[in-house]
Amino acid sequence: MTLAYSTAELQAILAPVAVRGVTSVVITGIAALKDAGPGELSFLGNPKYKPEVASSRASLVLLPADYVGEPSPGQVFFLVENPSASLASLCARLEQTLWPRPAAGSHPSAVIDPAARIDPSACIGPLCVIEAHAVIGPRSIIGAQAFIGRGARIGADCWFMAGVHVATESLIGDRVRLHPGVVVGSDGFGYDSSTGKHLKIPQIGQVVIDDDVEVGANTTIDRARFSRTRIGSGTKIDNLVMIGHNVVIGRHCIICAQVGISGSATLEDYVVLGGQAGVAGHLTIGKGAKADGQTGINTTVAPGTFWKGSPCLPYQLEQRINVLRQRLPDLFRKVETLAADLAELKARD
Amino acid sequence: MTLAYSTAELQAILAPVAVRGVTSVVITGIAALKDAGPGELSFLGNPKYKPEVASSRASLVLLPADYVGEPSPGQVFFLVENPSASLASLCARLEQTLWPRPAAGSHPSAVIDPAARIDPSACIGPLCVIEAHAVIGPRSIIGAQAFIGRGARIGADCWFMAGVHVATESLIGDRVRLHPGVVVGSDGFGYDSSTGKHLKIPQIGQVVIDDDVEVGANTTIDRARFSRTRIGSGTKIDNLVMIGHNVVIGRHCIICAQVGISGSATLEDYVVLGGQAGVAGHLTIGKGAKADGQTGINTTVAPGTFWKGSPCLPYQLEQRINVLRQRLPDLFRKVETLAADLAELKARD
Amino acid sequence: MTLAYSTAELQAILAPVAVRGVTSVVITGIAALKDAGPGELSFLGNPKYKPEVASSRASLVLLPADYVGEPSPGQVFFLVENPSASLASLCARLEQTLWPRPAAGSHPSAVIDPAARIDPSACIGPLCVIEAHAVIGPRSIIGAQAFIGRGARIGADCWFMAGVHVATESLIGDRVRLHPGVVVGSDGFGYDSSTGKHLKIPQIGQVVIDDDVEVGANTTIDRARFSRTRIGSGTKIDNLVMIGHNVVIGRHCIICAQVGISGSATLEDYVVLGGQAGVAGHLTIGKGAKADGQTGINTTVAPGTFWKGSPCLPYQLEQRINVLRQRLPDLFRKVETLAADLAELKARD
Repeated sequence: MTLAYSTAELQAILAPVAVRGVTSVVITGIAALKDAGPGELSFLGNPKYKPEVASSRASLVLLPADYVGEPSPGQVFFLVENPSASLASLCARLEQTLWPRPAAGSHPSAVIDPAARIDPSACIGPLCVIEAHAVIGPRSIIGAQAFIGRGARIGADCWFMAGVHVATESLIGDRVRLHPGVVVGSDGFGYDSSTGKHLKIPQIGQVVIDDDVEVGANTTIDRARFSRTRIGSGTKIDNLVMIGHNVVIGRHCIICAQVGISGSATLEDYVVLGGQAGVAGHLTIGKGAKADGQTGINTTVAPGTFWKGSPCLPYQLEQRINVLRQRLPDLFRKVETLAADLAELKARD
Repeated sequence: MTLAYSTAELQAILAPVAVRGVTSVVITGIAALKDAGPGELSFLGNPKYKPEVASSRASLVLLPADYVGEPSPGQVFFLVENPSASLASLCARLEQTLWPRPAAGSHPSAVIDPAARIDPSACIGPLCVIEAHAVIGPRSIIGAQAFIGRGARIGADCWFMAGVHVATESLIGDRVRLHPGVVVGSDGFGYDSSTGKHLKIPQIGQVVIDDDVEVGANTTIDRARFSRTRIGSGTKIDNLVMIGHNVVIGRHCIICAQVGISGSATLEDYVVLGGQAGVAGHLTIGKGAKADGQTGINTTVAPGTFWKGSPCLPYQLEQRINVLRQRLPDLFRKVETLAADLAELKARD
Repeated sequence: MTLAYSTAELQAILAPVAVRGVTSVVITGIAALKDAGPGELSFLGNPKYKPEVASSRASLVLLPADYVGEPSPGQVFFLVENPSASLASLCARLEQTLWPRPAAGSHPSAVIDPAARIDPSACIGPLCVIEAHAVIGPRSIIGAQAFIGRGARIGADCWFMAGVHVATESLIGDRVRLHPGVVVGSDGFGYDSSTGKHLKIPQIGQVVIDDDVEVGANTTIDRARFSRTRIGSGTKIDNLVMIGHNVVIGRHCIICAQVGISGSATLEDYVVLGGQAGVAGHLTIGKGAKADGQTGINTTVAPGTFWKGSPCLPYQLEQRINVLRQRLPDLFRKVETLAADLAELKARD
């Protein structure tokens, strides 16, 4: 990040309720309290890190308004209502300098079908392909080299990074972020294998992505066989995730990297799946249920429960079994000893 | 899917042997018997769902010619030879409306080397790159923004979706479907590490994909070190699969999502690998062998066998061990008790 | 590979210290001793394969200068200092015929911001997008349809295959190879979930890739929250790997396909991770430590150690437990028997 702000500029941006200390250093980075050095801004977001403030080498520290303590020489403290919120507002501003909003309109190198409907406030990047009857909503940004298929509909204020692929007839809500290499609407994996060979079952359904969803780089979401693969609003999906056809994911779920969800599985709201977890087809994961990384979910899961292992067991049980498993060498030895002792005892009788 | 057919239109398309009932509803979707509502078509593909016909709210149901029963008011039954086949023919037709065949020829925005040989009946989408000496066969469709490298040869009637990457010298048969983001012919992962550093071993082999193969979104297939990485005819590969260099896959295999196959492994015909399974290098999986999801195959596998677990064991054994594993807390307790009892007994003697 | 060399041409290229035998066959392929047939070149790289030389059907064999033995009729032996080195030099030459170096300069179809700085000796492929303030170093090759974001800096002699995505402000060293579909600099997966909903934490850091790194097809490397995700020099990363935000990877590591490394993990130098292994966040893997395929690393790992299983254990212990695990049915039976015997013994008393 090429960040360069004077203390005065940051004071204008962050409007601290009080300033302690003074520094002439230009701020060129952000880091955690213990990692930060001269020229960097840090922050006390979580009270448990309070002891790290005094020894931090950051040139500027965002602190809660009631913080007691003085800066080192050449260091400045900004006292603010909520250091985390101040930091977030600064970061959002910096994000805009990394990805400045392009001018509205379509880059002349984009190939746009005349039957596409693009809102005049939307931005279509260079070398995009927008097919017939695609609809791009107000203020949405379609990055370079993206592909928006025939009849796909994209809502307002979406942000698709370069190289996104949204296949024909996909339906995407507002404020959806897609990262590079995301594929929405690839064919489901369905064949009629009754003859031994695998006869393609056409996959003519849709993908529907609701508002405020984010999807990580190179993740793939397959279209339904007939109906809809659906991602509920507010759900966040990490990189290299595979979502099979006819999967229904609820609202505000967290799907970590490299998770695979097989066809026709249902995730209710607020489900959390750790990295590399796998979910078998045609089952339901109840509201707020969680699974650890690499879990293999092969059973319907009750709401609010926590799972681990492959095949999965309740988290506490799996943890306990993993501890006992490490004691198997002892157990085998112990049973040998018992058997010998018992044999001896029997012989004695 | 934007589907809208009147009953009369569907009757013309599907030519049922008999029609029962009448509806004026326009058919705008397809769904399973229990999910379908008014305006949707459903079907009885598997006799076990027969009881669901009577209560189905579908406006139109495809049924076998010998079906006994009458439709509800406002519902119509089409009696056909084979409901699944009728549905498939309808779906294939719908698929064509989702992805209408582009006109033959190359989009003017494509960058095509003059030394490429493209059949006049083939379709090259916008913003494709076709390098020198590449060959594209009759009626093949190369989607937008695809890359076909130097000397790659693509057969007849292939369908590559937008954004496919086929690297130099790859050899692809007829009727091959590649989904968005597929990479064919990336370098194998081979280094000479004898000095501690990792010296690149050039990967100068090929990928050969036989007829009727389908490869899912963002899957990668590495080129061989010298010779050929090969995918046999009729094999179907899901999304985000990794196929290492010099792998040889037989005919009619099913490779589910996120499977990884290490270098120089061989899969004979009709092998089935569940999602997220991993296969170690330089081993052979016999004809028709299967592995469950997340299986770790680290051993040569006999034909027709079924495997599970990581490292893998025969399926039944692994299932049995997983049941016993859950009883480990009991077993540990029981051995404790036995030891105490035995100690007491010994003390008594 | 379309390779066609006469023996005379190969003699000119490889300069053997001695030649035995003669063949008129044109060499059109390379294969291992036991796989090679007429028209193919083979080699004795590892002394353990010496017995395979006599029966090899290769038309030309590269052998060490001290090799004793005569070729079959129609077969030729080239005696060289170091057969592996000779083979490598031949392969490097062949690699250049597969991917001949494009002419310096930018393809007219590329969309290059006037504020990008491209060395005159660099090659920018067709339909690339190079954003403002991006820097491309001497002799670097940017393949077709690649995307180089705003302010990204690429060193000298890099080779990016078609379809690579390098996001804004990424910093890449010299001689870095990126394969198709690689994404460098996608957002890290970070949200403030304190309200139940998941509020995006802007990801405004960088990715820094040092010299001589290679990254496989469709791998994704996320940018840091504030600071740097870093890949050390000489590290090699396979296909479909996920590297989370703020991860720091040392020098000369080997990361096999489909590995996932969670946010803020640190890998010291010379770490080796087998395929599909997963690494939890915020932990350190010591110098030279290794993990087998599918390992789940959820703990800090000491230098030079070797791990296996999920959750991971030291390799030897995990192997031993896996053997005992297969004997669980016996153990349960044995404990049943002991219990019965003991009960009988107690009854007798």
